[in-house]
Amino acid sequence: MAEEKLTPRSEDFSEWYNQLVLKADLADYAPVRGCMVVKPYGWALWENCMAALDKRFKETGHVNAAFPMLIPMSFFEKEKEHVEGFSPELAVVTHGGGEKLEEPLVVRPTSETIIGYMYSKWIKSWRDLPVLINQWGSVMRWELRTKLFLRTAEFYWQEGHTAHATKEEAVEEMYRMLDTYYDFAVNEAAVPVFKGTKSDTERFAGAQITTSIEGMMQDKKALQSATSHYFGTNFAKAFEIQFVNQNNTLQLCETTSWGLSTRMIGAIIMTHGDDQGLVLPPRLAPIQAVIVPIFKTDAEKSKVMEVADRIFKELKAAGIRIKMDDRDNVSSGFKFNDWEMRGVPVRIEVGPKDVEKGTVALARRDKPGREGKSFVPQVGLDYAVSGLLVDIQASLLKRATEFRDANIHEPKDYEDLKNIVKDSWAFSYWCESRECEAKVKEDTKATTRNIPFDQPDKEGTCIVCGKPSKRKVYFAKAY
Amino acid sequence: MAEEKLTPRSEDFSEWYNQLVLKADLADYAPVRGCMVVKPYGWALWENCMAALDKRFKETGHVNAAFPMLIPMSFFEKEKEHVEGFSPELAVVTHGGGEKLEEPLVVRPTSETIIGYMYSKWIKSWRDLPVLINQWGSVMRWELRTKLFLRTAEFYWQEGHTAHATKEEAVEEMYRMLDTYYDFAVNEAAVPVFKGTKSDTERFAGAQITTSIEGMMQDKKALQSATSHYFGTNFAKAFEIQFVNQNNTLQLCETTSWGLSTRMIGAIIMTHGDDQGLVLPPRLAPIQAVIVPIFKTDAEKSKVMEVADRIFKELKAAGIRIKMDDRDNVSSGFKFNDWEMRGVPVRIEVGPKDVEKGTVALARRDKPGREGKSFVPQVGLDYAVSGLLVDIQASLLKRATEFRDANIHEPKDYEDLKNIVKDSWAFSYWCESRECEAKVKEDTKATTRNIPFDQPDKEGTCIVCGKPSKRKVYFAKAY
Repeated sequence: MAEEKLTPRSEDFSEWYNQLVLKADLADYAPVRGCMVVKPYGWALWENCMAALDKRFKETGHVNAAFPMLIPMSFFEKEKEHVEGFSPELAVVTHGGGEKLEEPLVVRPTSETIIGYMYSKWIKSWRDLPVLINQWGSVMRWELRTKLFLRTAEFYWQEGHTAHATKEEAVEEMYRMLDTYYDFAVNEAAVPVFKGTKSDTERFAGAQITTSIEGMMQDKKALQSATSHYFGTNFAKAFEIQFVNQNNTLQLCETTSWGLSTRMIGAIIMTHGDDQGLVLPPRLAPIQAVIVPIFKTDAEKSKVMEVADRIFKELKAAGIRIKMDDRDNVSSGFKFNDWEMRGVPVRIEVGPKDVEKGTVALARRDKPGREGKSFVPQVGLDYAVSGLLVDIQASLLKRATEFRDANIHEPKDYEDLKNIVKDSWAFSYWCESRECEAKVKEDTKATTRNIPFDQPDKEGTCIVCGKPSKRKVYFAKAY
Repeated sequence: MAEEKLTPRSEDFSEWYNQLVLKADLADYAPVRGCMVVKPYGWALWENCMAALDKRFKETGHVNAAFPMLIPMSFFEKEKEHVEGFSPELAVVTHGGGEKLEEPLVVRPTSETIIGYMYSKWIKSWRDLPVLINQWGSVMRWELRTKLFLRTAEFYWQEGHTAHATKEEAVEEMYRMLDTYYDFAVNEAAVPVFKGTKSDTERFAGAQITTSIEGMMQDKKALQSATSHYFGTNFAKAFEIQFVNQNNTLQLCETTSWGLSTRMIGAIIMTHGDDQGLVLPPRLAPIQAVIVPIFKTDAEKSKVMEVADRIFKELKAAGIRIKMDDRDNVSSGFKFNDWEMRGVPVRIEVGPKDVEKGTVALARRDKPGREGKSFVPQVGLDYAVSGLLVDIQASLLKRATEFRDANIHEPKDYEDLKNIVKDSWAFSYWCESRECEAKVKEDTKATTRNIPFDQPDKEGTCIVCGKPSKRKVYFAKAY
């Protein structure tokens, strides 16, 4: 319930976010350190994300499966970088059925190891390849500083794990799934993101190449929103994932993994939300339009409800996710604030005058006040609302893209970069050395986000050390 | 791959089951004691179960959410029966992020406690009720003797948890969800089940009433396939789940929970499977029909594939889950066996003669050999296959119901009961005392399955002690 106003974004963005997540009824803090409860409204949003992604995964030939949530500790030790990366974050089961276990089990922080183990059993011949499996579930990483949806000990995600005969195919798969994430982020979540390669220091533990999509939040911090990794034969070696090729020779598989999590909900909140609350992209909104009937007398009520009920049925039949707010214990003003807080894209008001005139009032969430309000005939309302939803979806993406592009600058020199990353992103040549990357981080707290695939033809010079550099990178403070 | 035949059911039912699960590619043993990997084909079957159930849950006003997989150990100690029931089965996390935890965390074996804790925070007024939340996920119970799908340490399920203002509403909810399970089992899985109340000794730990659906497998053992519980105020007291009622008085909620798991896949296997493998009900089958093109020469191939491809498109457009088996490295006979092992309801054969005649051969999985084979025109094949799928669905349910009813007997006396439960179910009056129940279990290994809601008008006498008894119960050996 939206009794109190949010702290404005301009005053304290982090506090605005924390309040919004609770007030919009998306999630709550769990009585387990660092964990969250995803409430029904938040989960409905995630279900829509899952459906949109799952459809894309299946269209590209992937199937789902389920692997155990507990993994023997020894599995982690088989890939050196992997264990180094994850061992500080593990939750460990030491007792089962009242007895101490011979070997401790880890609550999965990610499943490369156990899936790799199974692939080594399943894959025998080139005819078994590629193996293209995805898993929906949750994983556990013992995080010290947590924030709902952005960083919690347990979080919900999907993890795809694939095995291929050749490097070419595996790298192609990595890019295909990154493109899938990009398509989802841009066209479903209306979150404009950049695709690119992570630097060596920002790579996933055990990967040869890590690619990511990165979005700019309204506080101009970057949010890594999904990653897609190419492992080469690292995990294949560690778990003996091998196959007999067409020349009858035993050969190691090339593997990938790729994941997108409930972090995306954080991206949606911080890309589109305003001081009135959540603003949801229509394609993912659990409720796309809410009807608020307005009346004072019983006579008015019966006339208004007749129209409101008819509209409800028509819009539902048209496939619009519609909600009727017929609560009798709160005012219309309260309802308006409540649905604004929850980010419902369209509000439909029906009052006694609307009944007389054969109209309704439509209020679009993305444009507050008079600007976003229109009065339209009841006849053909399904078309009007569907059209409005399409328009809102496009407007959100346009606004976020303009905001992002207005806040990326190309620094003239290192001093300029230091100024830019205080409150925006810098895009500049970098020599790709760990030293220069570390210097920027130390001086500014900004990190390299990713190196986009599209690069200028000519070379430049590193913004830090001045050495010749082939590619530009985004520098920004990040979540 | 179905290279070898299954051990026949008549020879060793348990071994038949174990082999079938692996050979039909449903699941595999995990490298973690007692855990399973659900393979893509098995998971696709479970996805269809989930979709059919989730639709029913939402239609009855339920919403989904997600609660943490780890639960503080102390939560279990708040409800006495609950902790006694579950403490021998717990997997315990003692370390996180490299340090020993102050309080151990339990990998959830079920979520009444943590959900109860959250409900106590969320529920304030009668206006907040009922709360009708479901969760899809997995739980962990440290089982010593495991069997894929039937009993594993980790298993996949849904657990619904609801809170109500009155006992009447909560009990009604318990029955509503049991009816939902019944509807799903009978009309989607074609598994005929009995609805009824569990005995006091078979109740869920912490419940006041437990109801179940129970199916008869082909070895005539019973399989409890889903349960729905009424808790009274037990958990509300333990977790202070209370609300201010319409008279402005603080009152405890009445709660329920209900769950159905991947065990249902075991029920499907053991109800319908035969010595050739799995037999899937068409409504849940991941692949409803498979096309096997048959040819020898290249000239034949091009003619046959043209028809096969056209049929594939037509059936897909008609909404049939269709698969083309165009593998070129195995024989048609191998393919027939392979899809029979996987339980695909309909096989469509297209050969050179079919192309000439404008026909195809349809083979139904539930009736092997000539009896199940028909030759139908290619024109209108979508209708023919859709009709056949409906017929197969009905036939499976009819066959299973007849088998079940032929294997339930009403014992004349206790000696007769002892004979009956050796290889079938007994249905008889029982005084509902723990003593008589325990005696039957000791003498025969059979347990009370459930007490059906529909009972004869007149009373009878207990089959064990001869005392007057109001209700009849099913006795059977069970999984």
